[in-house]
Amino acid sequence: MSNITTKKVRVVALIGGLLSDIPPDLKSIGNLVDIVVVDGPEALAKELPNADVLFVWDFRYADVGPLLSSAPNLRWIHVAAVGVNSVLSPELLKSKILLTNSRGVFDGAIAEYVTGLLLAHVKDLQNTFAAQQRSQWNYRTTRRLAGHRAVVVGTGSIGRRIGSTLRKLDIDVTLVGRRAADDLEFGKIRPSTELSTVVKGADFLVLAAPLTHESSAMVGADVLSALGPNGYLVNVGRGPLVVEEDLLAALQSGALGGAALDVFDIEPLPVESPLWTLPNVVVSPHMSGDYLGFEVDLMTLFANNLKRWIAGEPLENLIDQSRGYVVSN
Amino acid sequence: MSNITTKKVRVVALIGGLLSDIPPDLKSIGNLVDIVVVDGPEALAKELPNADVLFVWDFRYADVGPLLSSAPNLRWIHVAAVGVNSVLSPELLKSKILLTNSRGVFDGAIAEYVTGLLLAHVKDLQNTFAAQQRSQWNYRTTRRLAGHRAVVVGTGSIGRRIGSTLRKLDIDVTLVGRRAADDLEFGKIRPSTELSTVVKGADFLVLAAPLTHESSAMVGADVLSALGPNGYLVNVGRGPLVVEEDLLAALQSGALGGAALDVFDIEPLPVESPLWTLPNVVVSPHMSGDYLGFEVDLMTLFANNLKRWIAGEPLENLIDQSRGYVVSN
Repeated sequence: MSNITTKKVRVVALIGGLLSDIPPDLKSIGNLVDIVVVDGPEALAKELPNADVLFVWDFRYADVGPLLSSAPNLRWIHVAAVGVNSVLSPELLKSKILLTNSRGVFDGAIAEYVTGLLLAHVKDLQNTFAAQQRSQWNYRTTRRLAGHRAVVVGTGSIGRRIGSTLRKLDIDVTLVGRRAADDLEFGKIRPSTELSTVVKGADFLVLAAPLTHESSAMVGADVLSALGPNGYLVNVGRGPLVVEEDLLAALQSGALGGAALDVFDIEPLPVESPLWTLPNVVVSPHMSGDYLGFEVDLMTLFANNLKRWIAGEPLENLIDQSRGYVVSN
Repeated sequence: MSNITTKKVRVVALIGGLLSDIPPDLKSIGNLVDIVVVDGPEALAKELPNADVLFVWDFRYADVGPLLSSAPNLRWIHVAAVGVNSVLSPELLKSKILLTNSRGVFDGAIAEYVTGLLLAHVKDLQNTFAAQQRSQWNYRTTRRLAGHRAVVVGTGSIGRRIGSTLRKLDIDVTLVGRRAADDLEFGKIRPSTELSTVVKGADFLVLAAPLTHESSAMVGADVLSALGPNGYLVNVGRGPLVVEEDLLAALQSGALGGAALDVFDIEPLPVESPLWTLPNVVVSPHMSGDYLGFEVDLMTLFANNLKRWIAGEPLENLIDQSRGYVVSN
């Protein structure tokens, strides 16, 4: 990579709707880097042909695949998210362009969010808030969180952090991954092919897996009915991990007890979706990982990786593109 | 106490509105005990003159003080709650009747409830639920729970469990008690006389102290304004720990950021209370400790203490009546 240091690295930053300026961390990298900020598909198409590096800030604006054939210099795409499914196009897979993500940044916030959703569920906070709106003293007994059994799908840093946080609150956690494995912290990791067996008798099923060809639609009618009428689904991964049609049917029939959903097939969730109004469903707007200050942490992570790139060092958080996620050491 | 075992112990159980029958645990104690269940003040007045032991199940129905002069045999009152303020009458203090409580039963449930309220607060769940009612995709960034500072008032088993649970979620916890002390788990315990200093810069103030002459009105305008416009009060102790008038004023003016209240001066909270409708307040109906199955655990605790009493062994959870709570070993 020594040739890279002989000329300025041209970074195209697709910022999208969330940020309006180049953040300080990127500016501080200095004059080895030439940063062009684009704010949508058209500007991206115009600038990508001259780019060495693409920084995708808001993956919801990125349909990069078709543009890659006209980007001969592009060597590396970094995504300011953990799930890279929207960027992993067939064109990218055929290329030699490296792909990295922002693994690690969201772990703690998502683990807290899941814990909050589960506590809200067992303590019935939604009905407490509703009773308050009616000025109604609605005394009732609610459940302990401790002693329940949770199945967490995803053995990446997010799934692991969710698992360890729930264990601190005395929940019995089973981790599910692509393959069976022995794990120092969680004991036997169960393969996702056995999911409908693993969730039998579980109280909570938490989805924190990447969306890949293998994981897509992994939760269908069979898994949901195995989780059962007292079971509770939490999805903070990606919508298409679940067959939304099956989920709706299970929630409406009572085959599944309830669900807290932060991600959906289509985002924002369309106004006409029945999920909005089902009494046993919590809908939240894909916000579980986005904590106050996360933008700075995302920028710092990219800036550090960019410094490595300039120095010719190996990149961190490199995606195994055949699998669709960072493979743990 | 050997004379007690020569005759049947007559236990009057004031069950109140929550339970309808003698629970199995009490029945299993067998024929050394004669149990009379009463369901309200009138039946209590009739039966108390013949009672050796009074078991107060629902402290909200108990105004026992005036009846004690006509209960010459009464030696022990057990309360199926932790706070005994409603039973600790001047008449009881003048008598030699022992008083025990149900310390320990509610610790875990209350710690979970407080954690749930704090997570709901930092993750803004109340507005997420409200947006869902309008089918509105209200994306926004919320806060981490980790890294905040909490002051927990109460060094009994409930306060300690709240503190240790919050510490597991990486909150910096300061414990406040009646007196300054050094503590193995929490470091320096601060005296409640310094509360308005201790809460400066804190994010959360959690009240889990018993209601006594000393603790009554411990949180007034000075403490609330020291906690400040970003501060959040959680009260799971007793309403009168807080000067409700000062609290209302601080919440309405913005001097205090918000509050989650499970206990109040008058319970149920009157319909006309402005607390119901303040946007920065969560009102819940004194339910933080009452988990599914708590009745069985309360009965088991009393039954075990009754067995000790019959065997002439020292009672557990004996209240220091001059202080108003169980003094830790």
